[in-house]
Amino acid sequence: MQDKTKEIESIIGHKFKRKKFIEEALTHPSCDNGISYERLEFLGDIVLDVIVGISLFKEYPSAPESFLTDLKSAYVNRKYLQKVGEDMNLQKFILYKNYEIPHLDNFIEAIIGAIYLDSGWKKTGIFVKNFILNKKIQPMQNHKNTLASIARKQFKTEPIYEIVSEKGPPHKKTYQVKVKVPGRRYVGKGSAGNKKDAEMSAAEELIRKLRRK
Amino acid sequence: MQDKTKEIESIIGHKFKRKKFIEEALTHPSCDNGISYERLEFLGDIVLDVIVGISLFKEYPSAPESFLTDLKSAYVNRKYLQKVGEDMNLQKFILYKNYEIPHLDNFIEAIIGAIYLDSGWKKTGIFVKNFILNKKIQPMQNHKNTLASIARKQFKTEPIYEIVSEKGPPHKKTYQVKVKVPGRRYVGKGSAGNKKDAEMSAAEELIRKLRRK
Repeated sequence: MQDKTKEIESIIGHKFKRKKFIEEALTHPSCDNGISYERLEFLGDIVLDVIVGISLFKEYPSAPESFLTDLKSAYVNRKYLQKVGEDMNLQKFILYKNYEIPHLDNFIEAIIGAIYLDSGWKKTGIFVKNFILNKKIQPMQNHKNTLASIARKQFKTEPIYEIVSEKGPPHKKTYQVKVKVPGRRYVGKGSAGNKKDAEMSAAEELIRKLRRK
Repeated sequence: MQDKTKEIESIIGHKFKRKKFIEEALTHPSCDNGISYERLEFLGDIVLDVIVGISLFKEYPSAPESFLTDLKSAYVNRKYLQKVGEDMNLQKFILYKNYEIPHLDNFIEAIIGAIYLDSGWKKTGIFVKNFILNKKIQPMQNHKNTLASIARKQFKTEPIYEIVSEKGPPHKKTYQVKVKVPGRRYVGKGSAGNKKDAEMSAAEELIRKLRRK
């Protein structure tokens, strides 16, 4: 464990004063050894959100709120953070006893919580800048907003979403969603591991169909 | 305007070094004078979240993540913040040109963003402690989680939510939602100004029906 702790410290560029924080951040409850990353994930989630948000707020002094929201979503979403975890080979350092590898995005957040507790805002900001804000990316396209605005302007109505199915165990669900614009015959369908992403992808499909006709 | 600024400063207990922040925080875009509370609301939303979250994290050192999440939700939700705004008579200080009074919760968040920009974490923390964390409240009951756990344990399935209707203009929508547990004949219905609250209330109704039988 000590060698592994040193290795992950060197990867993330932070030497912990209190090693128990990084150990807790990398332990899945399936290990049943009395510690779990979950509280640190709670903390890291909100700390990450505010560091990214404040940084964008300052970087784009005249951008509207909607741009800031969409760009923040592009940095703090599960998929992006999962990729950050994969790039640092995080799965190697997580202690778990399931057959499935846990979602890495949760552990990225837990690491952020651990650095914050260990060393405060400044050091946490450095980690976030080096590993999360280090790439220039596009604001997350909010297809639901786009579809709502098409529906309002062109058809004076609102899209209606429906969950077609919700399958699988809690930690590995798949949602199937469909969306319609009342009075139009087209249907958009989407599926994903969470409801919002499934709705986004259904909205994207419906936008394509409405524009094609 | 100067008198009003002094009055709101005295209510919230913060004297702004830069008055433009509090003026921006209290201006609705309908005034069309080039400023709007919306960027400050973006900032205040995440700053509030992290101040409440960190405070609860420290106050309850052995509570599970789910408790922290539910208790944080009880403090940062729209309804609670709306009440905070009403208690300080905030509507009196908001500049707007609609016929309807804007939602006060957004302006509470904008004020938090303004204090943060004006004076940093410490002063913002004082405002949050005095006006938001000053009441002991119960964790928000997450009826969706409760229903999902009943459905899993008793019926080996998952609840299915459906949006029945989504009515009204963007700033004043009403969602009607129904929920079923596959194979059971009961239906829970709920409506609210946002999807999540409508789902919560539908879940609550279905739980009552499932427990009654």
